[in-house]
Amino acid sequence: MKKSIITISREYGSGGRMIGKMVAEKLGISYYDKEIIAKVAEATGFTEDYIEKNGEYSPSKSIFAYSVVGRDRSGSSMNDYIFSVQRKIILEIAEKGPCVIVGRCADDILADYENSLHVFVYGEAEENIKKVMASNHVSEKEALKLMKMTDKKRSINYNYYTDRQWGKAQNYDICLNSSAFGYEACADIISEIAK
Amino acid sequence: MKKSIITISREYGSGGRMIGKMVAEKLGISYYDKEIIAKVAEATGFTEDYIEKNGEYSPSKSIFAYSVVGRDRSGSSMNDYIFSVQRKIILEIAEKGPCVIVGRCADDILADYENSLHVFVYGEAEENIKKVMASNHVSEKEALKLMKMTDKKRSINYNYYTDRQWGKAQNYDICLNSSAFGYEACADIISEIAK
Repeated sequence: MKKSIITISREYGSGGRMIGKMVAEKLGISYYDKEIIAKVAEATGFTEDYIEKNGEYSPSKSIFAYSVVGRDRSGSSMNDYIFSVQRKIILEIAEKGPCVIVGRCADDILADYENSLHVFVYGEAEENIKKVMASNHVSEKEALKLMKMTDKKRSINYNYYTDRQWGKAQNYDICLNSSAFGYEACADIISEIAK
Repeated sequence: MKKSIITISREYGSGGRMIGKMVAEKLGISYYDKEIIAKVAEATGFTEDYIEKNGEYSPSKSIFAYSVVGRDRSGSSMNDYIFSVQRKIILEIAEKGPCVIVGRCADDILADYENSLHVFVYGEAEENIKKVMASNHVSEKEALKLMKMTDKKRSINYNYYTDRQWGKAQNYDICLNSSAFGYEACADIISEIAK
């Protein structure tokens, strides 16, 4: 396989996680998403729930909360600490062998990693909304709010911990519109390129 | 062929034009780039040189020139007229049958066109610079200036004539980093998807 480390960044509702799983299955390689949360929780002693809320959406908490409870005496925040542990774990995962890693700035952490393929998955807003409505059992208005909030948090986190702009085509090797092709075809395209 | 109208938007120096030509050859379909200039020149009576300078980079001329010589009595500018003719010609080309069209806001003009595939090609800045230096016989500094100016003009033109932002992944079905894959592989990926 030419590209053995595949990172997938995604818009909320675009199906990036599902596509990542499909790619891992097609290529017979490991898949990491929530698994990273468990590893970071174990390494830091925080609960998985805390890591899930803070590992990908960190500096978006209120400035008040951040300034009062978020910083330790060295000047770095708990979120910085979680990000640092998460970064180390992602580097270890990549060292272990071929895999698909979803989210968590893995594209930036592994930017210069040999044989890596960095993918961004997005979708048409109308389709993303429908999918978020169905999977979260919420109204159109609530789905739109959830999408905007999630992507905004992901974007703030990404822009904070990398020197890049989240979702900018130039960060990735390939960007795919899942609404145009469907999940299966996106997974096929990525798998074929990786091979 | 599932996707018979392929539009290619590209960063200057990314090889998008070359990739477009390769795709047309691989699929055995028509290729339009400079050919559109000749058609617009014929339809408007302007020289090809004038159309080349104004057909893809229109509202970037100085505001002074635009306000003094650019507008006819109806309030629209010569550039608006050229864009309108160019738009009509692109729609006619798409009606004729399978083809690859490079640049000229064709992705927006044919956004809702059935069986269309809209591609954005970009590259690593360092590689783009080297290619522009070689093809234009200019220094690194001049190449960088030329790239920035060309992409800025393309971007202003695109943002002016469409309701979109040039180069934003979400406008396209697929975005490809030509530095990551090379021209041939990019052309293969596009051709396979089109099939």
